[in-house]
Amino acid sequence: MEIGLVGLGKMGFNIAQNMLDHDFKVIAFDTNKETVDKISSHGATGAHSLEDLTKSFTGRRAIILLVPAGPVVDSVIGEIVPYLDSGDIIVDAGNSKYKDTLRRYEELKEKGIHLVDCGTSGGTEGARHGVCVMVGGDEEAVDYIAPLYEKISIENGFMKTGKAGSGHFLKMVHNGIEYGMMQAIAEGFEILDKSDFDYDYEAVAKVWNNGSVIRSWLMELMENAFSKQPKLEDIRGVMHSSGEGIWTIEAALDYQATAPVIALSQFMRFRSLEDDTFHGKVVAALRNEFGGHAVVKK
Amino acid sequence: MEIGLVGLGKMGFNIAQNMLDHDFKVIAFDTNKETVDKISSHGATGAHSLEDLTKSFTGRRAIILLVPAGPVVDSVIGEIVPYLDSGDIIVDAGNSKYKDTLRRYEELKEKGIHLVDCGTSGGTEGARHGVCVMVGGDEEAVDYIAPLYEKISIENGFMKTGKAGSGHFLKMVHNGIEYGMMQAIAEGFEILDKSDFDYDYEAVAKVWNNGSVIRSWLMELMENAFSKQPKLEDIRGVMHSSGEGIWTIEAALDYQATAPVIALSQFMRFRSLEDDTFHGKVVAALRNEFGGHAVVKK
Repeated sequence: MEIGLVGLGKMGFNIAQNMLDHDFKVIAFDTNKETVDKISSHGATGAHSLEDLTKSFTGRRAIILLVPAGPVVDSVIGEIVPYLDSGDIIVDAGNSKYKDTLRRYEELKEKGIHLVDCGTSGGTEGARHGVCVMVGGDEEAVDYIAPLYEKISIENGFMKTGKAGSGHFLKMVHNGIEYGMMQAIAEGFEILDKSDFDYDYEAVAKVWNNGSVIRSWLMELMENAFSKQPKLEDIRGVMHSSGEGIWTIEAALDYQATAPVIALSQFMRFRSLEDDTFHGKVVAALRNEFGGHAVVKK
Repeated sequence: MEIGLVGLGKMGFNIAQNMLDHDFKVIAFDTNKETVDKISSHGATGAHSLEDLTKSFTGRRAIILLVPAGPVVDSVIGEIVPYLDSGDIIVDAGNSKYKDTLRRYEELKEKGIHLVDCGTSGGTEGARHGVCVMVGGDEEAVDYIAPLYEKISIENGFMKTGKAGSGHFLKMVHNGIEYGMMQAIAEGFEILDKSDFDYDYEAVAKVWNNGSVIRSWLMELMENAFSKQPKLEDIRGVMHSSGEGIWTIEAALDYQATAPVIALSQFMRFRSLEDDTFHGKVVAALRNEFGGHAVVKK
């Protein structure tokens, strides 16, 4: 099977290697020529442009996009579509917002092109040696690329999720859950750290990973992190986020689903980005107004 | 080594079997005579009373309590202490509140008796085949029973947590984290269930357990639960709790640690126990007062 791949970042490059391991013909493009040369040296066919990529196929095209979610996806699709034939498949394997996916699916459908949405989890290590994928879209198109995903995913790590958008939606909710789990784990260590007890956090994460109810990959990652820095001395508690938590909350609001812990986990991330807050000023001002309580001045 | 065991419920009985497997001399008591007879038939020495249990030892006593947290622990300790000698060890392996543990530790210390606190995780299956334990208390006493825990715990599932109370405190925080993780997972499935997509939840839990970031024992349990009931048809969403979430929040308040997600997970459990709420009536009444919005009448 011929597979096109646009985007050779950490995920894309590793997935390309993974596909090459399984003897797929990979036609790869990235705006960074160096990474294209590098993956070519691993056996891929390097493309000089998106046009060149589309023209390197001998038959039906299936082109995986692993580019940043948002306008870049639209721009790549816009550039590629003129060179595609009816029946060709674009697989968006990035973390696109499912509503964007639904819009793009309809736009491409009018042109006879299938958009398959693939939620990808497992990090760069998974991308290299066995990915976890949730794949939505037209059944025929999903079935066409299924043999690829059967090979490059970890055992039982490939799910056909249903109609268009369902793959990205499921991956989005996965990330929402991830936010909540991470915040719960983090708060537990916060309490340990403020307590009168003196724990070895690496040992704590280790015992919790062996036989306890909260054993999990995230706790394994904490064991690893604490093994490097017993108290995470060099890290500030700034928690960035990349959109999927927000979208999960938006979905909860759209569908009137109660999801307070996921929402709060996202808000705690926003809070962590600020050294001071306006709501803090408001509460301080109110305490001063009604009770004469001292405020902390700038 | 001779080990006393008070309490042959599901956890106690399985741990007794686990200890017998490893050739410890187990002296067991329960108020339910049948379970005492049953564990005797597995090779334990059955005791007819707490006094009898203490008198069945030939040397230093180490007595594990696996009884319900709260007054029962005080009552068993009160009954047992007159028959103990200085240097003997009581191991509270239940989910006692760490503040109770600290009080009992001091009370027993005055009598020359060691209280070791052991947080136990892993459920009944773990109790039977390899438990996860977090053990706090006087170092000499913990070291005395360590060879037992080395044998009955899963590999790397035994941690010496430090001074008295640290075992129960760590287990309590473990359960707080567990509440948050469970609520996050639950909210994710809530959003899936209210969405326009139609997922096979068993397949979802399965793919999430294979290579994804949120793979965890809790997600494995969900895969199992959904395999029995695809939509949990026969279960009402009533979420009981057994105290450790509340204590975790109390600890967070005592130490001024920020733990909103764990707190909210506990409050969502309280909410689930009610068919109607007073705060709901208040909001409905206020909307009616200021905006004439209709209220739902009883």
